[in-house]
Amino acid sequence: LKKGTLKREYVRYGKKGKKLKLVFERFISIFDKHLACVRLTLKPINFNGQINVEFGLDNTLFHGEQKKDNHWNCIETGKIKNNGVYLLTETKNTKFRVLSSFIMANTEDTKWRPIKREKYAGLYTTVKLKKNISIVFERNILNITEKRHKASNGNLKKRLFNIIDKYKFSGYAELLKKQEKKWAEFWQTRDIVIDGSDESQQGIRFCMFHLNQTYRGLDPHLNIGAKGLTGEVYNGSTFWDTETYCLPYYVMTNPKAARNLILYRYKTLDQARKRAVQLNCRGACYPMITLNGEESCGVWEYGNLEVHVSAAVAYAIWHYVMVSGDKKLFYQQGIEVLIEISRYYASRAAKNKRKDEYGLYGVVGPDEYHMMVHNNCYTNYLAKWVFEYTIRTIKDMGEKIPEKLEKILKKIRFKKSEIKKWKNIALKMKIPYDKETKLFEQHDGYYDLPSVDLQKPSFNETLIYKKWPFDKIFRYDVIKQPDVLLLFFLFRNQFNLETKKANFNYYEPKTVHGSSLSPTIHSILAGEIGLHKKAYEYYKYASRLDLDDYNKNTDEGLHITSMSGSWLNIVYGFAGMKVDADILSFDPIVPEKWRFYSFLLTYRGNELKFSVYKKKFKIELLSGTGCKIRVKGKTYQVKKNDREIKI
Amino acid sequence: LKKGTLKREYVRYGKKGKKLKLVFERFISIFDKHLACVRLTLKPINFNGQINVEFGLDNTLFHGEQKKDNHWNCIETGKIKNNGVYLLTETKNTKFRVLSSFIMANTEDTKWRPIKREKYAGLYTTVKLKKNISIVFERNILNITEKRHKASNGNLKKRLFNIIDKYKFSGYAELLKKQEKKWAEFWQTRDIVIDGSDESQQGIRFCMFHLNQTYRGLDPHLNIGAKGLTGEVYNGSTFWDTETYCLPYYVMTNPKAARNLILYRYKTLDQARKRAVQLNCRGACYPMITLNGEESCGVWEYGNLEVHVSAAVAYAIWHYVMVSGDKKLFYQQGIEVLIEISRYYASRAAKNKRKDEYGLYGVVGPDEYHMMVHNNCYTNYLAKWVFEYTIRTIKDMGEKIPEKLEKILKKIRFKKSEIKKWKNIALKMKIPYDKETKLFEQHDGYYDLPSVDLQKPSFNETLIYKKWPFDKIFRYDVIKQPDVLLLFFLFRNQFNLETKKANFNYYEPKTVHGSSLSPTIHSILAGEIGLHKKAYEYYKYASRLDLDDYNKNTDEGLHITSMSGSWLNIVYGFAGMKVDADILSFDPIVPEKWRFYSFLLTYRGNELKFSVYKKKFKIELLSGTGCKIRVKGKTYQVKKNDREIKI
Repeated sequence: LKKGTLKREYVRYGKKGKKLKLVFERFISIFDKHLACVRLTLKPINFNGQINVEFGLDNTLFHGEQKKDNHWNCIETGKIKNNGVYLLTETKNTKFRVLSSFIMANTEDTKWRPIKREKYAGLYTTVKLKKNISIVFERNILNITEKRHKASNGNLKKRLFNIIDKYKFSGYAELLKKQEKKWAEFWQTRDIVIDGSDESQQGIRFCMFHLNQTYRGLDPHLNIGAKGLTGEVYNGSTFWDTETYCLPYYVMTNPKAARNLILYRYKTLDQARKRAVQLNCRGACYPMITLNGEESCGVWEYGNLEVHVSAAVAYAIWHYVMVSGDKKLFYQQGIEVLIEISRYYASRAAKNKRKDEYGLYGVVGPDEYHMMVHNNCYTNYLAKWVFEYTIRTIKDMGEKIPEKLEKILKKIRFKKSEIKKWKNIALKMKIPYDKETKLFEQHDGYYDLPSVDLQKPSFNETLIYKKWPFDKIFRYDVIKQPDVLLLFFLFRNQFNLETKKANFNYYEPKTVHGSSLSPTIHSILAGEIGLHKKAYEYYKYASRLDLDDYNKNTDEGLHITSMSGSWLNIVYGFAGMKVDADILSFDPIVPEKWRFYSFLLTYRGNELKFSVYKKKFKIELLSGTGCKIRVKGKTYQVKKNDREIKI
Repeated sequence: LKKGTLKREYVRYGKKGKKLKLVFERFISIFDKHLACVRLTLKPINFNGQINVEFGLDNTLFHGEQKKDNHWNCIETGKIKNNGVYLLTETKNTKFRVLSSFIMANTEDTKWRPIKREKYAGLYTTVKLKKNISIVFERNILNITEKRHKASNGNLKKRLFNIIDKYKFSGYAELLKKQEKKWAEFWQTRDIVIDGSDESQQGIRFCMFHLNQTYRGLDPHLNIGAKGLTGEVYNGSTFWDTETYCLPYYVMTNPKAARNLILYRYKTLDQARKRAVQLNCRGACYPMITLNGEESCGVWEYGNLEVHVSAAVAYAIWHYVMVSGDKKLFYQQGIEVLIEISRYYASRAAKNKRKDEYGLYGVVGPDEYHMMVHNNCYTNYLAKWVFEYTIRTIKDMGEKIPEKLEKILKKIRFKKSEIKKWKNIALKMKIPYDKETKLFEQHDGYYDLPSVDLQKPSFNETLIYKKWPFDKIFRYDVIKQPDVLLLFFLFRNQFNLETKKANFNYYEPKTVHGSSLSPTIHSILAGEIGLHKKAYEYYKYASRLDLDDYNKNTDEGLHITSMSGSWLNIVYGFAGMKVDADILSFDPIVPEKWRFYSFLLTYRGNELKFSVYKKKFKIELLSGTGCKIRVKGKTYQVKKNDREIKI
């Protein structure tokens, strides 16, 4: 985790008692996205002899659950000088091209023979082995991809050969040094240190390592797959997890990456516009699941009905701007996306037949165990918020930069009457809140659903999901993942503690955590209302989900998007951070088993380090001009000197 | 229609001006289900010459919308003496076997050569033609089927050859006489005569002809396909149309056929039991769509959620017993089915979380435009009725035939506590009725759904169905077909006129008649509440749907199950018949354009003929001991003499 390398070694026993030691070392470069390096060391322990060695690029693999499909067409293979090969392939459906290659480093003496098979290119040689003398093979692997159908095959090859030239004299040791240096920088500016639990310490570092491996904002045309590239389940597709669970992590630790996540949605705005038309709506409807901006959800119940996804995109814009202060993106791309999303909700919302009240009918909320419900509280609340935020932003721009606003409004044929319509819908949007009980009803009729007694609320979903047919799950009050409760995470300053307590106590016992993202939110809220033990129990699940294979499905791929959850758990949860007001605030505790923890973050151009002890809270300003920070209700001005606050 | 024959003739113009007249005559036998006859007459109008003739059994056809699949495996083909061939095939999935054959009648002089190709068997000959002299070929086609995997192929052939022997000396003319005689009997005992509209007259006869062609109760292992065997849409499958729309027709005109329709459900009780287990329920859950008793609906929203189908089976038992008086079937098979359906509903129903009230949650009612609703009024009402009817029947049997009852209860491990549970659920079943408005709410929250103004309520569904994506249809108050209103058709004596009026006026304008069965029910109810013009408009649609191809889809097959609707329209509608009380009653009118109409029916062993004139209503007892009949509220004893009643 520290250096981003993987080492594997073993001794192989041959037929006549021959012993051969093999050591594989490898890393995927963090300093050049095209590069990966492998070093293989062979050491004959008790014999002299010779051995055949073959290295290859292999696109013949079968994919999917049944391993039935190969997704690749081969376009071309070829040699690179005397020590390399390349393989140019394209995916069968999307026609994305991948140009793969490798060159053998430090093997000038070896005679390599090329091998060509279907969808395969390799090099082959025979070498002599001497007892106790190691032979080392070093391989630099270089890939480039073309997902936008622009570059010709010839251009791709030119680009590849230029990159290869950069590394033609570089061996494994030299490149590893670069790798180590870059990862050291990462840990220096991002590490979370936990004193008191090795398990917790390992868990959070495991998560942060994989988040950085998966996405660090190099390209606004890419997003975060729910399982990254670690497994084939979900096909590398992006969900609203990005905006709701991952963005808070990136926006506080890598604002450039957060910016590119927002730009991804801007760059796929046209696909969202087309989707809205398909659904007989206006504006832009963002997809539930996507690779290239188009809806790719195979199940209509989710793909057509989870209309809250677009609101998550609007929320992400607000969240990014709030934390980064980057008004440039906001006033240029952000406003266009906001207006199109507002248009979508205005066309998707409808009026109650008997009451002068608006709502979103026939939806699925974040809780996917309730199908085709009306007035899902979460969705209505978010849609209302989107209208108000968009109107506020248009007004703001009209005062500050009227010409720029005018230009954008003209481009998207905006009519002033639209604002009037949005205001009216927002004003009359149904938010099912009961003053007496302080409860929000999850959706129309939720209170009247038959109840299931989940005697032992378990983190895994086997209780319900594996025993009941799904149409039975859908008709009881069982909840898959936070729905009403998610509001309290997104808008931490907007609800009082009594409301949070009432709703947590009502909804938490009904939730089976059928999503890996569920325990995190419950941990954060439990901590906030003072249930610290419960908060810690939920935390353990989030931070070591894959390390300990809680769900028995790590072989399907790592739960990348829920890895950010363990970061949220510490910073939003135990440290009690809130960002949704004009001041950054904390309400920290240290879990019973821990002695101390520290974390680093970026807030409005300031790099800050926080150390939380049982009785004190230390703030260091590493760079930037400083800012105000509220701790346990009191406001402090953070400047160059460190601050220590008793808690 | 009168004789059940089809004749087609044309003159074919050859290359050198040769003219050949071809006359095809054919019928599917009504007196032997195995037999069909074809006569081909060739007459050279202006030449002498010779001609090659080939007749064949062809199972190479492609099926389905895309004509991509052939569903047949060929097991065997062979010759039958010198003038016949057979073809034994089986369906690929279900392994149903069909043994087809034909023999050429009256062609002793002709030398037939057999032809064998893949999935094809035929006979071939060359004959000489003389100008103006007709040559006639007569073919007797014989098919037998084996759907229950019992008989060996050898046995099937033996059975076939026995049948063939019966017809080996029979020519077309002789068999046609039998056919004509049998159809004459049918029309004599069933015909509806309408004076005043040739269109109406043709429409009703067209419907009755096809119903009799499709199903006349020969085999309790068969049921009525929604399109009979006239087209491939719906794959010959059976829906709840049978019990709700077709059974009333059969029970009044062909009690034996009605009895076999009930027995079909008894014979598939085990499949329904297995289905209940699959759905995590008890008892028996009857399928939404089926070929062999197993659920074959490909869409879970309908296949899993239309739980009202089982109630339709219970209703059919009640309806059959009520009209036929056949207690034997009722006390033997009927009670077992009823108990298993009650068990199903008891396990499927659930209790409101806050109120002491039961309901069926997460269902689709007859109106398939509303997905996953709670407390669909129709479904709750029927389920409550099923509990009460079953309890009543058990009590009745306990008093009259306790040993027989005990034996059945023991067989299905019935516990007395079940009755207590059913009573409680029935008592507390939610029936959403408002005394003030007299309205039944279709399902929880229906009144709050956004409204669509169907300015021109049209009989075809193009308005909505072709313009809106289905998830949009699902969230408005648009109704596909009668749902609450269907209750008033099933239980005609249970609701007063004011209630019927209020609900008709509320629901009818919201209905787009997306099912061909919808106009019939609306016609009957419109007539009942005095909207006679509207009733007649709806009637025209039902009776000539396929003749005039209203829906532009007659090429997909005839709407067989909605053909019974045109019979219901006249007898239940214009004649105002009610059967759901202990006395048969009428409230007849004659549509403005008609002068007179008459119909025949069977009621508790009595064959009766009714003639309705503008001002009088004539009843004739054709056979039986007579019965009481109520006309316009007055009761009459019908005996041997005809009765004429002024209306």
